[in-house]
Amino acid sequence: MLLINRLSQSDARILMSGAEQKAEEIGVPMCIAITDESGNLIAFERMDGGKVHSTTVAQDKAFTAASARKATHEFNEACIPGSDNYLFGIHTALGGRLCIVGGGFPIRVNGEVVGGIGISSGSPQQDMACAQAGIDKFNLSSL
Amino acid sequence: MLLINRLSQSDARILMSGAEQKAEEIGVPMCIAITDESGNLIAFERMDGGKVHSTTVAQDKAFTAASARKATHEFNEACIPGSDNYLFGIHTALGGRLCIVGGGFPIRVNGEVVGGIGISSGSPQQDMACAQAGIDKFNLSSL
Amino acid sequence: MLLINRLSQSDARILMSGAEQKAEEIGVPMCIAITDESGNLIAFERMDGGKVHSTTVAQDKAFTAASARKATHEFNEACIPGSDNYLFGIHTALGGRLCIVGGGFPIRVNGEVVGGIGISSGSPQQDMACAQAGIDKFNLSSL
Amino acid sequence: MLLINRLSQSDARILMSGAEQKAEEIGVPMCIAITDESGNLIAFERMDGGKVHSTTVAQDKAFTAASARKATHEFNEACIPGSDNYLFGIHTALGGRLCIVGGGFPIRVNGEVVGGIGISSGSPQQDMACAQAGIDKFNLSSL
Repeated sequence: MLLINRLSQSDARILMSGAEQKAEEIGVPMCIAITDESGNLIAFERMDGGKVHSTTVAQDKAFTAASARKATHEFNEACIPGSDNYLFGIHTALGGRLCIVGGGFPIRVNGEVVGGIGISSGSPQQDMACAQAGIDKFNLSSL
Repeated sequence: MLLINRLSQSDARILMSGAEQKAEEIGVPMCIAITDESGNLIAFERMDGGKVHSTTVAQDKAFTAASARKATHEFNEACIPGSDNYLFGIHTALGGRLCIVGGGFPIRVNGEVVGGIGISSGSPQQDMACAQAGIDKFNLSSL
Repeated sequence: MLLINRLSQSDARILMSGAEQKAEEIGVPMCIAITDESGNLIAFERMDGGKVHSTTVAQDKAFTAASARKATHEFNEACIPGSDNYLFGIHTALGGRLCIVGGGFPIRVNGEVVGGIGISSGSPQQDMACAQAGIDKFNLSSL
Repeated sequence: MLLINRLSQSDARILMSGAEQKAEEIGVPMCIAITDESGNLIAFERMDGGKVHSTTVAQDKAFTAASARKATHEFNEACIPGSDNYLFGIHTALGGRLCIVGGGFPIRVNGEVVGGIGISSGSPQQDMACAQAGIDKFNLSSL
């Protein structure tokens, strides 16, 4: 039997609230998705003005980051046609659900991945900043 | 040009919280989804212990109720093989995303549909009770 | 509650007719799709000779432009492997429904996105020209 | 943070071997799928002669049983058009991935669902018998 650590709903709310604060600060209404360590959705919020397609993209970023245990922008950097890492094409996996656009991060506690956060509606850099703000708030709360 | 009324994020939180209170009262951790009037997700919560497949089913119930402007259990009652209403089969539409299992309700304000709520993880009757509790709380808050 | 402006059917007909006139002028039978601000279809026409796959592509272009609130060719310009904008891969989102091929434009009234137009069957430049002609006619009619 | 119990690979092998022994005994080559508690695949085996479509159906049965925390044949018994339980239609959820054909069982340890087993290629009764044999062997091994 394996013993798995997983984000709870109250953990998810801390992540969500940190991301939302940053989104309000930069003035971009975001779609924010939090998944568990298996990539299944725990919490989602589309701030007033968040984009329709981002409801799916945010979930897919969180799923990808939790499952792959790395940030989606790391996939993005490595996914280049003709590169000798043989990674190009990963972005079409699972019918495109594996998302390599920046804005998805794994959530780690003591080095172990316990969930994922995915944000969409701004530029990937804006999405990344809000996801990081969520993680920062979560890390502070667990000290 | 048309003018459309749509649930805001703060409206969604009232619906969510009413449903969650009922779920705690009956002791069934639920997946709760709120969509806008077009069926696009605004808010989602999987209470600790909510079921994995219910993350999708709850969203599909809310989508269906908002789009069809009726409760999913009303479809359920009418969707019978050989019935002279010619409705049987509607449950496979949109790749099964059109959900006729009880637990999805449209949200109305002044008779107009402004969103949908979908709940899944309990029996359909339990899901329906929690969705109704969310709507009751929302209606009270708008008096 | 939010108040949303949305294209009406009569608005859609003006957009459609402007696009169609341009298509006839350049001699390319087009598929023309008009969506509302949430990306859901309002009107569609396949001119005699329009291409079969374009029935889907036109809808996806209109959906993408309405949802993302930018033209699909803007995504196209920015979606480059290895670029430091971390956007590459967006073209496979939503099972490829998020379309970055030129020919999709958001429809704006007073700066707010109220719908989308997507055109397919010619070259992307031809599709873009016809979509722009639809928008020009619509803008003139709203003066 | 939540603490989750999950089948390990060695647990999965015991389940698999119990199911396989029964399949050999009744002379029906089976597809056998074992998932974790979130419905994600841990182990799969198509015995020589197992059916092609059953590679998917076995996985869907195991996913459904783990996620819903009940056997797929229990869904089957309750999913009846016109029934007052409002459950009919659940079989088309998730694009039909939610499988209500007999042969999927949750795996429980101390009352908690830690995974699922799904079997396909025989009649549902044969599939159920083999799944139960896997569970029996697993339960004996944990005494």
